[in-house]
Amino acid sequence: MTPDEFRELGHALVEWVARYREDLPGLPVMSAVRPGDIRAQLPATPPEAPGALQALLPLLDSVVLPGITHWNHPRFFAYFPSKTHLASVLADLVCAGLGAQGMSWQTSPAATEVEEVMLEWLRQLLGLPLAFSGVLQDTASTATLVALLCAREKSTGLALCRGGLQQAHAPLVVYTSEMAHSSVEKAALLAGFGRDYVRFLPTDAAHALQVEALASAVQADVAAGLQPCAVVATTGTTSTTAMDPVAAVAEVARRHALWLHVDAAMAGTAMVCPELRWMWAGVEAADSVVFNPHKWMGVGFDCTAYFVRDVGHLLSVMSTHPSYLRTKADAEVKNFRDWGIPLGRRFRALKVWFVLHSLGADGLRAAVRRDVALAQGLAARVDAAPGWERCAPVPLQTVCVRHLLPGASAAEEDAHNLALAEAVNATGEAYVTPAVVKGRRLIRISIGALDTAQPDVDAVWALLQRCAADVGR
Amino acid sequence: MTPDEFRELGHALVEWVARYREDLPGLPVMSAVRPGDIRAQLPATPPEAPGALQALLPLLDSVVLPGITHWNHPRFFAYFPSKTHLASVLADLVCAGLGAQGMSWQTSPAATEVEEVMLEWLRQLLGLPLAFSGVLQDTASTATLVALLCAREKSTGLALCRGGLQQAHAPLVVYTSEMAHSSVEKAALLAGFGRDYVRFLPTDAAHALQVEALASAVQADVAAGLQPCAVVATTGTTSTTAMDPVAAVAEVARRHALWLHVDAAMAGTAMVCPELRWMWAGVEAADSVVFNPHKWMGVGFDCTAYFVRDVGHLLSVMSTHPSYLRTKADAEVKNFRDWGIPLGRRFRALKVWFVLHSLGADGLRAAVRRDVALAQGLAARVDAAPGWERCAPVPLQTVCVRHLLPGASAAEEDAHNLALAEAVNATGEAYVTPAVVKGRRLIRISIGALDTAQPDVDAVWALLQRCAADVGR
Repeated sequence: MTPDEFRELGHALVEWVARYREDLPGLPVMSAVRPGDIRAQLPATPPEAPGALQALLPLLDSVVLPGITHWNHPRFFAYFPSKTHLASVLADLVCAGLGAQGMSWQTSPAATEVEEVMLEWLRQLLGLPLAFSGVLQDTASTATLVALLCAREKSTGLALCRGGLQQAHAPLVVYTSEMAHSSVEKAALLAGFGRDYVRFLPTDAAHALQVEALASAVQADVAAGLQPCAVVATTGTTSTTAMDPVAAVAEVARRHALWLHVDAAMAGTAMVCPELRWMWAGVEAADSVVFNPHKWMGVGFDCTAYFVRDVGHLLSVMSTHPSYLRTKADAEVKNFRDWGIPLGRRFRALKVWFVLHSLGADGLRAAVRRDVALAQGLAARVDAAPGWERCAPVPLQTVCVRHLLPGASAAEEDAHNLALAEAVNATGEAYVTPAVVKGRRLIRISIGALDTAQPDVDAVWALLQRCAADVGR
Repeated sequence: MTPDEFRELGHALVEWVARYREDLPGLPVMSAVRPGDIRAQLPATPPEAPGALQALLPLLDSVVLPGITHWNHPRFFAYFPSKTHLASVLADLVCAGLGAQGMSWQTSPAATEVEEVMLEWLRQLLGLPLAFSGVLQDTASTATLVALLCAREKSTGLALCRGGLQQAHAPLVVYTSEMAHSSVEKAALLAGFGRDYVRFLPTDAAHALQVEALASAVQADVAAGLQPCAVVATTGTTSTTAMDPVAAVAEVARRHALWLHVDAAMAGTAMVCPELRWMWAGVEAADSVVFNPHKWMGVGFDCTAYFVRDVGHLLSVMSTHPSYLRTKADAEVKNFRDWGIPLGRRFRALKVWFVLHSLGADGLRAAVRRDVALAQGLAARVDAAPGWERCAPVPLQTVCVRHLLPGASAAEEDAHNLALAEAVNATGEAYVTPAVVKGRRLIRISIGALDTAQPDVDAVWALLQRCAADVGR
């Protein structure tokens, strides 16, 4: 493709994206295609001859779009906010156009240095102490794996240089809450700890980790000859945005030399608001912290910020120095390839820059405050509605509700709520997530898409009530 | 940002990218900025107020561009080809504009199903057997980590469900060649094997793994009470594009129940040419294969294709099933979140589709053949040039050379070649990589940027000769 052909198609696709964003409110939120529908419309074999890309453009409308669940739709209330500001889209165009590789400083110094500055900006925006240094990774799943690998190597004195987890040692134990994200268990298993050595601790009525249970578990493991290694505390759990008591967890971690990883994947964005920072009070004692600019902050997926206090230790675990990667500048610069798992790195910091410049700290705070206010308004209406139960506190932007079936068994009520969530989603008018918390089914309404406003929240609440009546019939 | 503001800036940036690609041949290949130059031009603190994005556009030219090493420059001969076709850039614009999340099938069915079809197309293009299923990941580093995790769990009968690597077991051993990419060692260390249990086997004169050495090492480890677990064979090593004898390695792997992972990160693209498939003859016996469409194939970074034969085992190692991720469709679909480390997944398959459609199999093959022919031509000229040594066979697109200093010690000659490579790079007229192979310094000329043609190869060869004379003075 020549630059001129690129111009023609590029302009057409800029229009396509702009129209897509304009059309969003009228599209069904959740894709209604059936399994295999999209696949069946594509050839089973690759083309032999080169083809004009113009031919694909109509397929974006006919094949792709029906298969998209619209995360930027104002009535997207599922999972977590993962909005993509249009400023981020523009940065990705530039990033792809440059095709720069940021594995080493020298392979594109701008990729490294803009990332350094953007992580420093994010650190300041979140109010993290100066002692933290940050790096971009793809997802919180990966960052949490890196954190547990670093914890493992801290406890074993860098056993990876010797016999790894295969040398004789007291088994290492990882602690987290029963409400921790699934990626914490996955990371612990991938890091080799084994499920026998992962403790899922009970939570209180607000679904926050019980620190006494943590202390007891650690003591019991020490007594049993095991070696407590790491604890993962969550600021804003996935199911209910519960807040683990970070300061109290940090105190246990300090006493037993545990690595403390704070998972604020979704809620981290809220820390731009000073009045919300009580939520992770004590975070300054963490060894590592992860939050996702690609969630509530609106930087396009994927973009995870991983902060650590001991960069030297991170490098000891992650760095490799083959000759073909060494450059003259190495002593004076950061080589972010040594800060994570992948060697190759794209210029992700560009989209952080575009979004932070475009919104400013004021814009970021306003977006968080809008969503918290919308959630509190909805929580109040749920509380006042007969036949509905609110299942968790609402510190942030997620409201967990259950429609009650008086006289029904718990199992019947659970089945009713699952059916209710699926009925809501099938309308295409809004999209919510059914979840199970402590064995009971509930429906999560997670607020924070790009243009969600009061009428959208009103609409999903009305829809839940309408569908509840229909499903109950 | 409104869609109309996006239109205005989007059109401007399409022009910017097109002009950038047009201007490439005139730009210095390697960025000449000094450490800290870029950082110093950005504010130390984030903006408080929202800002117009127009203000950033001039900074792309004044701040970013001088800090870019141009991987799409026709005289980029460093590292490995990592070209980005403009078709891929267009796909990334759409991908970012949609902002779709492909973690589950339901969260955007098109992301999953287009990925399924594209991996099937890639499987056919590379001539891999039907038994392989593919998935996209970010980088080969990550895919190799996944491979070694799967190997570990195969050898231990899914010990991750019990005591992990911490339960009593004969220590597991990983084998690879001394020429394997650094990511293989890194993956083994992160997976917990420990350096004591990673064997770097000697290579022959062509820098390919000596299969007798592998067989002996495995036998010695078995005799010592260890458990051989995995072998990583490389098709096209990083330093010299050496070809490990996959079929012979596979035979050892079969005898000892080793997991066989084939790393064809760069060279995999060449397998689109049937006449080159002898290079990985025996690959059908592999348990896993990785190749990077984001290298020589020209799909923009990041985009790694990971193929496995036993999907069930991959899912056993990688899957998590919390309630908030379960959907009605799960029984009928693939959920690619369970095929790798990150939970979140962007719509990467779109850029594979755009590139494969745009080039077709014919175009892919022509690009590979162009570069192989260019490399062979250069190799012949090096062979004919007095004072120069070619340090490795040239099966693909990488030519490894050394400028000889008659009468000098090996150390002096090495220092001379490092200085020579740095002198070439400092001109900005071309960019090559100095490397060390078996203790000796050489210079890699890796051919395969987007528009590299005969005059560019002529130019880098003339430049090497000119700089050799200057540096030697």
